[in-house]
Amino acid sequence: MASKALAIIAGVGPGTGASIARRFAQTYSVVLLSRNPDNYEPIVKEINAGGGKAIGISADVSDANSVKAAFAQIEKEFPGTAAGAAVFNPSGGFVKKPFLELTDEQFSTAIDSQAKGGFYFAKHTLPLLLKGKGQTPHPPTLIFTGATASVKGSAQFSPFAAGKFALRALAQSLAREFGPQGVHVSHAIIDGVIDIPRTKGYVFPHEDAKLSPDAIADSYWYLHTQPRTTFAFELDLRPYIEKW
Amino acid sequence: MASKALAIIAGVGPGTGASIARRFAQTYSVVLLSRNPDNYEPIVKEINAGGGKAIGISADVSDANSVKAAFAQIEKEFPGTAAGAAVFNPSGGFVKKPFLELTDEQFSTAIDSQAKGGFYFAKHTLPLLLKGKGQTPHPPTLIFTGATASVKGSAQFSPFAAGKFALRALAQSLAREFGPQGVHVSHAIIDGVIDIPRTKGYVFPHEDAKLSPDAIADSYWYLHTQPRTTFAFELDLRPYIEKW
Amino acid sequence: MASKALAIIAGVGPGTGASIARRFAQTYSVVLLSRNPDNYEPIVKEINAGGGKAIGISADVSDANSVKAAFAQIEKEFPGTAAGAAVFNPSGGFVKKPFLELTDEQFSTAIDSQAKGGFYFAKHTLPLLLKGKGQTPHPPTLIFTGATASVKGSAQFSPFAAGKFALRALAQSLAREFGPQGVHVSHAIIDGVIDIPRTKGYVFPHEDAKLSPDAIADSYWYLHTQPRTTFAFELDLRPYIEKW
Amino acid sequence: MASKALAIIAGVGPGTGASIARRFAQTYSVVLLSRNPDNYEPIVKEINAGGGKAIGISADVSDANSVKAAFAQIEKEFPGTAAGAAVFNPSGGFVKKPFLELTDEQFSTAIDSQAKGGFYFAKHTLPLLLKGKGQTPHPPTLIFTGATASVKGSAQFSPFAAGKFALRALAQSLAREFGPQGVHVSHAIIDGVIDIPRTKGYVFPHEDAKLSPDAIADSYWYLHTQPRTTFAFELDLRPYIEKW
Repeated sequence: MASKALAIIAGVGPGTGASIARRFAQTYSVVLLSRNPDNYEPIVKEINAGGGKAIGISADVSDANSVKAAFAQIEKEFPGTAAGAAVFNPSGGFVKKPFLELTDEQFSTAIDSQAKGGFYFAKHTLPLLLKGKGQTPHPPTLIFTGATASVKGSAQFSPFAAGKFALRALAQSLAREFGPQGVHVSHAIIDGVIDIPRTKGYVFPHEDAKLSPDAIADSYWYLHTQPRTTFAFELDLRPYIEKW
Repeated sequence: MASKALAIIAGVGPGTGASIARRFAQTYSVVLLSRNPDNYEPIVKEINAGGGKAIGISADVSDANSVKAAFAQIEKEFPGTAAGAAVFNPSGGFVKKPFLELTDEQFSTAIDSQAKGGFYFAKHTLPLLLKGKGQTPHPPTLIFTGATASVKGSAQFSPFAAGKFALRALAQSLAREFGPQGVHVSHAIIDGVIDIPRTKGYVFPHEDAKLSPDAIADSYWYLHTQPRTTFAFELDLRPYIEKW
Repeated sequence: MASKALAIIAGVGPGTGASIARRFAQTYSVVLLSRNPDNYEPIVKEINAGGGKAIGISADVSDANSVKAAFAQIEKEFPGTAAGAAVFNPSGGFVKKPFLELTDEQFSTAIDSQAKGGFYFAKHTLPLLLKGKGQTPHPPTLIFTGATASVKGSAQFSPFAAGKFALRALAQSLAREFGPQGVHVSHAIIDGVIDIPRTKGYVFPHEDAKLSPDAIADSYWYLHTQPRTTFAFELDLRPYIEKW
Repeated sequence: MASKALAIIAGVGPGTGASIARRFAQTYSVVLLSRNPDNYEPIVKEINAGGGKAIGISADVSDANSVKAAFAQIEKEFPGTAAGAAVFNPSGGFVKKPFLELTDEQFSTAIDSQAKGGFYFAKHTLPLLLKGKGQTPHPPTLIFTGATASVKGSAQFSPFAAGKFALRALAQSLAREFGPQGVHVSHAIIDGVIDIPRTKGYVFPHEDAKLSPDAIADSYWYLHTQPRTTFAFELDLRPYIEKW
């Protein structure tokens, strides 16, 4: 088990992160990062109980030192182990408000968790992914989770949109630099409401109107399986009924 | 065998079209449209010999009557049969030339094969796809093949770019209209040289520098398998080494 | 008067085209192309009465021969005269309809007037614009009028969107080829309802909610005055109150 | 003189900022913000000597307190005065480097100066611009300076691209929120090398291959003069010879 490569997932709650963890745990040892252990503990237990291997680490992606400490712990738990996949999936910084009512902190939180967080995460995972080349069943893959706000700055959404636009820029830049080095960097635009416990209150007139976390995880896995001849950079995912 | 739904593929040569045909023939009866029978005959034979079901029909997608006749023949061969998938993949109209040296015909050919061709194809396949709802293993899917020129009008490429931009507009419009009706409409941006007999002469300094037709076909199949909660509209595919 | 360079404007009705004609007539002899003389006659009279120089020519931009004949007539009226500006502004092909109710002709009309029309117009104006280099007060300029549909293929809008996407591809390609030759090629995205007689019926809850044709003309003129160090390719114009 | 409205410009060096200051000083009292007084002193002197009114304030846009102090000083110098225009133009954070050699600080500096800086600047200028409604000759205008990196995340450019993408998101969001309130928010994509003292070393084979700061300033002024019926949000500016 210890010899399996890693899948490192930042931003793991009861929704998309958990589904991604489950999917990648079929092939990799998974490392789950979240600020709150409550977020990763159930899925860590579930994976280990099911014959997979998972650990959780409390970390704040927007804090350089916290990310550094998390990766030191990964190295301690899995010394010298390469990564096959890394997924940046934190949802931090979402806020909708008239611009002049925003606090400096609300804007900073979004930027720090999405843009700086993405940077810290990439900085620590890319060396492990580069090490994974030739050792993993598919080209090592780094996936960033985007949102509608990655490509549209709507009124009253500036903090989250600024963070998500910045994250997309980072993803593009890394894809162009590390693709030729054999690491597949992708960006997924999640355009709609995800069907997770937190969104139970959103009721739509049509069935199946929310994105399925398991289907998102399948799409991420699919991206991961692509050969280097045929890498996708960007994929937009939305429910069939979504307006866009 | 006759009761299987159809996969209808326009633009079938020895490359992507053939790979798509092979992939979809694992589940569907395939209908291959091409102007020249030489393009579809080998793959039709191969599929039928392998236990699948395939027919080829000579058709010019840029000619409304030719497309109409082709679909009349489909109805004759597979009366009342629904479609599970349709793929628009013709490469017609590519030309690179100083603008003032272009003939009217060169511009028209690109527009007619990519834009009008896409329209005629969609008009005839959508009723069959709508009929496929609930009868096919995955939501009925209509995929359009785009290119680098779908999103960038480079110098000396105006005919093909105009055609491919127009095709992308058509794809977007159909995705927004037919997604809510349960038909998955997608657009794939093929950004690079495809590894087919015709491109043998393009030699790159790196291995694996051309897109694999089989990997493109896998991506199309993946799009087809997505549930309606989580449809992708657009996917860009390129070799790891491609500049973009 | 005969020695002034030309501004050639295709698509002249009582709205934007007339305002553009008026604006450019302050510096150039203007040639107005429209299918219907009723469209250009009032503005031709107005310009000539006001001391400017204008002629109108009946032409269908979607018909290669009609465009050819129009430019033969321009050469006859203004032999050897260069062009300082050319504006492609026809509105042809707009239709909103469920896709499966569209006729082949409705789709073709939009494609032919927007995409092929743009091609024919560019083919005939670019030689005159190239001749204008160094002779006109500002770099010779070719402007294409786009719309919301130039960048978004909305449901039930496929003909117009396909035409406008194609026209944008043409504009990009020409800007990249002819910019380095000193011709300024631009594309304006008109995103909203224009305040013209035909849109009197559209009433909005806010004042000034429609685009002003004169302000659009000012923007086109501004584009024309830019020096070659600092060309704009694309400009999106919309009322302050417009949702986008 | 004291009764003229303000034009507040952040990021003033010997290039674009100075040209913008000169252009807007023909109508407004100008306030120039820069970290280093050396950057604004010459242009402040020049404007005051020429009969205009200008002051310079040392401020670091990436520091919330520094921006706050600067606007307190503006209020002290021009009590109760509205703003007709505000331009965010700092160049901070540009760095090109292999990703794994970037320091945390290099990424943060770009994000903090472009994204957070834009936020702080908008927060302090928007109330003054809203106050300017009806008092200024043109609709109050907030312009953000973007770059090639605003729309493309190139390899080795992630810090600046992340910052500029984020700034564009902010600009879009503000345009959508404050346009309907009568404030014109725009974003200019400067795509090329600007002809300033710092770029003297860049020599091109063609004349006029660099953007003119005065022409950029003219474009900004043109945006400012647009009536609310016809606001442009985005404008891309590049030399005629630029590859894009």
